[in-house]
Amino acid sequence: MTQNAYDQPEFFEAYSRMRRSVEGLDGAAEWPAVRALLPDMRDLTVIDLGCGFGWFCRWARAEGAARVVGVDVSEKMLARARADTSDNAIAYEQADLEGLTLPQGRFDLAYSSLAFHYVEDAGRLFDEIARALVAGGRLVFSTEHPIYMAPTSPGWSIDQDGGKIWPLNRYLLEGPRTTDWLAEGVVKNHRTIGTTLNLLIRSGFVVEHVEEFCPTPAQIAARPELVDEVERPMFLIVRASVGPKGRSL
Amino acid sequence: MTQNAYDQPEFFEAYSRMRRSVEGLDGAAEWPAVRALLPDMRDLTVIDLGCGFGWFCRWARAEGAARVVGVDVSEKMLARARADTSDNAIAYEQADLEGLTLPQGRFDLAYSSLAFHYVEDAGRLFDEIARALVAGGRLVFSTEHPIYMAPTSPGWSIDQDGGKIWPLNRYLLEGPRTTDWLAEGVVKNHRTIGTTLNLLIRSGFVVEHVEEFCPTPAQIAARPELVDEVERPMFLIVRASVGPKGRSL
Repeated sequence: MTQNAYDQPEFFEAYSRMRRSVEGLDGAAEWPAVRALLPDMRDLTVIDLGCGFGWFCRWARAEGAARVVGVDVSEKMLARARADTSDNAIAYEQADLEGLTLPQGRFDLAYSSLAFHYVEDAGRLFDEIARALVAGGRLVFSTEHPIYMAPTSPGWSIDQDGGKIWPLNRYLLEGPRTTDWLAEGVVKNHRTIGTTLNLLIRSGFVVEHVEEFCPTPAQIAARPELVDEVERPMFLIVRASVGPKGRSL
Repeated sequence: MTQNAYDQPEFFEAYSRMRRSVEGLDGAAEWPAVRALLPDMRDLTVIDLGCGFGWFCRWARAEGAARVVGVDVSEKMLARARADTSDNAIAYEQADLEGLTLPQGRFDLAYSSLAFHYVEDAGRLFDEIARALVAGGRLVFSTEHPIYMAPTSPGWSIDQDGGKIWPLNRYLLEGPRTTDWLAEGVVKNHRTIGTTLNLLIRSGFVVEHVEEFCPTPAQIAARPELVDEVERPMFLIVRASVGPKGRSL
């Protein structure tokens, strides 16, 4: 089973104070970029893999999705998601993405925000998602960018000219990375972009869009601390579809 | 027009002394990884974009290609390619990839080794290549990896623990990068992996494989200096196809 950091009290409390936890989707800098890749939600059956507090599930319903299933490993997050949701068309289920099984051909859209980097066997998960989607169905996900995850010391350094640099190393050494983000000893799984895309392709996906998140000038103007994000990407965002291209949504 | 560094005497002399120039394809660490993505060459009509001394053109013919066209901007390189080739089924043509025009539906395989990073308008070039390929035709190319190209100071630094780190910055700031590689003031064009792949997709390509080059343990054993290459990728290697997937070669 994947480590479930979210149910550690220290992690949960810290995560709950993050802007994206308090403000929801609009508190996440990458949300506009992710949203731009989403299809029209009307009448779609949607699954959110790593749904957390359920912000996306509720947004999808507000945009017209017919039915939304939110899956998360964290009982604490699901408890709050359920408490914050009053909508019979949204169901929350506890499950670990590592060993997830899904009904076949059930969903039009699989969505995931910043959860896949906890998963060790991404190939197995992509296989499962591909089978769970209808022909022409789509997967849209964000994950921590491998440039962000790879280094021994994943934090800014100052170079001799006083500029911020990201001390990249171990990029091609795939495998677990342990960091002290929100809590000590949080384990993520580092994969190159190439590996992630090749696993998707092997699972039958057609890669439609690959985005290495960069804040817009308007975002930087509104939140000046985002200017550092142009130096190295924090998030990788991908849209892929299954089945014949002509049958996409 | 793209800068033609290769015809500068200083650059040409230094490039001519590189292992890949002296030994040919086997002198390039990434060649086995590129070769693994190439289709069976028998009876194919092939174009090599940025053919240099013609090593790949001659290899393709030796592997059974019916006809090979090598294109390069450098007259000096083409002169040596022609001098080293005695094969009427190989033609060399001088052209700049930046404004290249190609016959439509002519080639089964377009190949390019470490040339696309000189091109400013990659979208236009990918459009042209897509049109020049037959249905099911493939593009296999290597290009300098954007992690390698992005930084202000693209060279190793030593961190406080004595480890080698790659001082990444400006990754999301796309555009020209001027370095002093082999000669002063060589201009390359930095694009993220996302941008490269999205331009391919927009041109009608289906992305089949994305590889961020990592030397194999056997390569590192034979050439110990390659061990640093696992810290950050130097090359990006892509295979893409045009037309219906079922009609691939």
